[in-house]
Amino acid sequence: MENIEKVRHSLSHILAKAVKELYPEAALGMGPATENGFYYDFDRIKIGEDDLLKIEERMREIIKEDISFVKKKKNKEEVLEIFKNEPYKLEIIEDIEKEDGNKNFTVYESGNFIDLCEGPHVKRSKEIPLKSFKLERIAGAYFKGLEKRPMLKRIYGLSFASEDELKTYLKNREEAAERDHRKWGARLDLFCFSDLVGPGFPLFTPRGTIVISELKKKIEEICENYGFQKVLTPHLAKIELYEKSGHAKKFSEELFHVSSENKHEFAIRPVLCPHQTQIYASKIRSYRDLPIRYMESEKQYRAEKPGEVKGLSRVYGITIEDGHCFCTTDQVKDEIKGIIAIIKDFYSLFDLWGNHRTCLSLRDYSHPENYIGEKEDWDLCEKILGEVAEEMDLDAERQEGEAAIYGPKIDFMFKDAMDNEIQIPTVQIDFATPKRFDLTYIDENGKEQTPIMVHRAVLGSYERFIALLLEHFNGALPFWLSPEQVRIIPVSEKFSDYAEKLCQALKKEKIRVTIDREGETLSKKIRNGEIQKIPYLLVVGEKEKKASSASVRYNGNDEGAVSFSNLIERIKKEKEL
Amino acid sequence: MENIEKVRHSLSHILAKAVKELYPEAALGMGPATENGFYYDFDRIKIGEDDLLKIEERMREIIKEDISFVKKKKNKEEVLEIFKNEPYKLEIIEDIEKEDGNKNFTVYESGNFIDLCEGPHVKRSKEIPLKSFKLERIAGAYFKGLEKRPMLKRIYGLSFASEDELKTYLKNREEAAERDHRKWGARLDLFCFSDLVGPGFPLFTPRGTIVISELKKKIEEICENYGFQKVLTPHLAKIELYEKSGHAKKFSEELFHVSSENKHEFAIRPVLCPHQTQIYASKIRSYRDLPIRYMESEKQYRAEKPGEVKGLSRVYGITIEDGHCFCTTDQVKDEIKGIIAIIKDFYSLFDLWGNHRTCLSLRDYSHPENYIGEKEDWDLCEKILGEVAEEMDLDAERQEGEAAIYGPKIDFMFKDAMDNEIQIPTVQIDFATPKRFDLTYIDENGKEQTPIMVHRAVLGSYERFIALLLEHFNGALPFWLSPEQVRIIPVSEKFSDYAEKLCQALKKEKIRVTIDREGETLSKKIRNGEIQKIPYLLVVGEKEKKASSASVRYNGNDEGAVSFSNLIERIKKEKEL
Repeated sequence: MENIEKVRHSLSHILAKAVKELYPEAALGMGPATENGFYYDFDRIKIGEDDLLKIEERMREIIKEDISFVKKKKNKEEVLEIFKNEPYKLEIIEDIEKEDGNKNFTVYESGNFIDLCEGPHVKRSKEIPLKSFKLERIAGAYFKGLEKRPMLKRIYGLSFASEDELKTYLKNREEAAERDHRKWGARLDLFCFSDLVGPGFPLFTPRGTIVISELKKKIEEICENYGFQKVLTPHLAKIELYEKSGHAKKFSEELFHVSSENKHEFAIRPVLCPHQTQIYASKIRSYRDLPIRYMESEKQYRAEKPGEVKGLSRVYGITIEDGHCFCTTDQVKDEIKGIIAIIKDFYSLFDLWGNHRTCLSLRDYSHPENYIGEKEDWDLCEKILGEVAEEMDLDAERQEGEAAIYGPKIDFMFKDAMDNEIQIPTVQIDFATPKRFDLTYIDENGKEQTPIMVHRAVLGSYERFIALLLEHFNGALPFWLSPEQVRIIPVSEKFSDYAEKLCQALKKEKIRVTIDREGETLSKKIRNGEIQKIPYLLVVGEKEKKASSASVRYNGNDEGAVSFSNLIERIKKEKEL
Repeated sequence: MENIEKVRHSLSHILAKAVKELYPEAALGMGPATENGFYYDFDRIKIGEDDLLKIEERMREIIKEDISFVKKKKNKEEVLEIFKNEPYKLEIIEDIEKEDGNKNFTVYESGNFIDLCEGPHVKRSKEIPLKSFKLERIAGAYFKGLEKRPMLKRIYGLSFASEDELKTYLKNREEAAERDHRKWGARLDLFCFSDLVGPGFPLFTPRGTIVISELKKKIEEICENYGFQKVLTPHLAKIELYEKSGHAKKFSEELFHVSSENKHEFAIRPVLCPHQTQIYASKIRSYRDLPIRYMESEKQYRAEKPGEVKGLSRVYGITIEDGHCFCTTDQVKDEIKGIIAIIKDFYSLFDLWGNHRTCLSLRDYSHPENYIGEKEDWDLCEKILGEVAEEMDLDAERQEGEAAIYGPKIDFMFKDAMDNEIQIPTVQIDFATPKRFDLTYIDENGKEQTPIMVHRAVLGSYERFIALLLEHFNGALPFWLSPEQVRIIPVSEKFSDYAEKLCQALKKEKIRVTIDREGETLSKKIRNGEIQKIPYLLVVGEKEKKASSASVRYNGNDEGAVSFSNLIERIKKEKEL
């Protein structure tokens, strides 16, 4: 066991000792080490978070006393005597006896405090760095986690190897909270939830809808450059569709079933692929029609466990940007190259391309039974993916055993500003689905052939991607994605005409601009604009009106007065990404 | 009874007489007049549609013979004797007796033919215009419509007052079939259906998706001009949302219920309004924030009876263009004017504005109990709608009793090219929904007030609107909606370079253009382009290449050679609607 775990475990005993000294009436529950510290449960105690500092202080005094942790074996009679006034401990003793059939019990003595415990612990309390821990919060917790048992008070503590590590942890946690997309969602007024609609169903406000629309426009524009065509398919279908595709089985628990008084039985799609195969299947296709490339930004729904939905990162209704190519074997290589070029174009928009790693996900060669399809197809497609990785200098890591069940793939992993790895984009070759749906094309010799299907994800789900962007950019979305790109702040009512003139000129250039007409002070208005991460704040007053200019604050930097014509040119340029 | 009905009824007897003469073995069923003609059912007869002409000829001979229709009363014994060889007639006799307790039976004699019949009939067969009828088709029909009884052969005939009327009817019917949106859907490759997905769930191909996207872009552009903002809401919600809005009750049978193994219980929305109220409700609103105008082009789902779904005109998944304003009483008038301006702008695009009528749909004053809300609110809003109709010269027809349950409305009815009335656009005032959802705003005095909600439909559902457009324009969608705006047809392989050059120049102007590279003859290619209603067909060969021109066929008219630079300018202008 690592030393830090011994420290954490010992701190939980010291916490219990301190509480018993300060609140002798307290009844002891249990107290283990945790991932970042420790906790201990108490009953018959009236404390609030205000009391934590006092308890913490007492803990430090105990540590300074340099008490020892001594392990002892006791028989049942002895432990029953020791804990005779601790009802929860008595129950735990019975449980241990029942489970282990043990007649011997281990206890640890530290000063006048004794606890049922297997250890290990530090030898003496002075081994614990005095400032490396901190009591954090109090929460309710059922005894043994059982809803029918009494609710105890659980005191949580943080503990690290050093004071520095504790500080770093606290700072990171604060930053993560600061960056949390849910906070930005509310502050930038991008999305909301309604108790009547239910969690897992985000509602996008006009501002949030702008972010989605701009992302959609951009990804569609890029994909159109590479020959993708938009299609539109419904969210429901007969369950047979997903039985044929295999998704009914794969998503059985997560599948939403649909019924009506008029005796309909449908399912809501957990993925988009099967619907798109049906557009391909609606006509006889010739080799001259291939490749056919469909894309769609539409919702799929998955019945996640109710406790697991969270903000935008885990939702029931997922707006997915999905696309598929149907092509001949000869065309697969170019299709994959095209898709990788799309991924590069798109992630370059966010300066994320370059700061990524690539995986070539192949079969587990020792377990061919885990995959479907012919060996020759696999050999060929792994070879093609390898060549693509080579020719495009992807520097891809070969990962055997990481292929999809139906074919090999190339995955891209990006690092966000918090150094978290984002794994979204992927290119996958699929022989199986076209066969399942009897998709065909007529080749040069008039013979029916089965096309290959290539799956691709670029931004994945709009909900999760927006959550990532908000956290990556800490709320300051790039100019082209900002719902409000420019805010004009007249220093007083007197200059609202001039503000209106600027506003109209910017609107003409299709810039998203507003005028702040609230009755706040100037400094409050500037602060509001900065908190809401508006890229351009233009303050206008007497001086600016006379000079046909505006005082510019750009992403929080005060740039002083800029002539309005220059400003328009600059903003126009920034708009044309 | 009108004369034409007597004629039709008499023709059914003459049909039976003719059949019995040509096929003496035939057994007679029944034969009434119908909406457009008549029919008669026969058993023990082997005929196909090829035989109809022969029967029709015999019918005309009988008419020329100028036979009389003579009504006679018979008792049961007499009719049993008359029809002793007609088993179906014998059963009918029993039925008549059972139902009516009648001892007297009416028969009509016409020449040697006699039939059980109440009449009336023409007096003599010469009253029937010789060329005003036509035998149409043969279909199977169960005796008395009962599935367990024998399947008889039903011969259908058309009959009108004159030869001209018959011709008009046939022409209209042909045109309706020709205009059917399902035919155009297949011919223009706009949408398809899949057995695996199910009827009622259209899948839009790349071409169909272009039509939807262009419509969406246009309506959103117009609505944005009038201050509407896009929002995005999910298709599912807790059933409580619709219980509160009243839609769970209103659409009980048509509601799709959603469940999962993870114990979720949701409903799919039958309308969009309740979701949009929840975005309004997500923040405290001030009078300065109003009016707030939301719009959304998204799907709603209704569990129509399985037999009733049909093409795009009746589907389970309806992509609705829906919008709502939330405003103060003082603002309602301007809101309504803005919405009517949107309707005018949008329908003018299709040259439908002007060719319409308007209704002012008010309460039924004698039944105030049929409506919800306060009398003063109704009085005020009917007054406002009346003023709007006046000030905007709508020439609106007052229709008492046509209001929605929650408020009065203005409806617009357009005439399509077939003279069918299209009733889609509507503006409705709603006091009830904001109250049900406790929507509020803070007024000038810091007091909470309830906003008024204005519902509006402009194009309604994309599916139905596209069906209407295809039928109205007979497949020839306006240039800006055409999925393929220009098709270049090189007269031979030799000119594909030149075709490619034109193609790239048009693509640069964001024109949707293709090159026809199929191995067909030139005339076949032109014919294909015309059948598919491509607005511009550009034929290019030696002469055109030399002159930097193209031979233009515009909406089916051969315009001869046009210089390419002029053509680009012209097409660009046509694009900028």
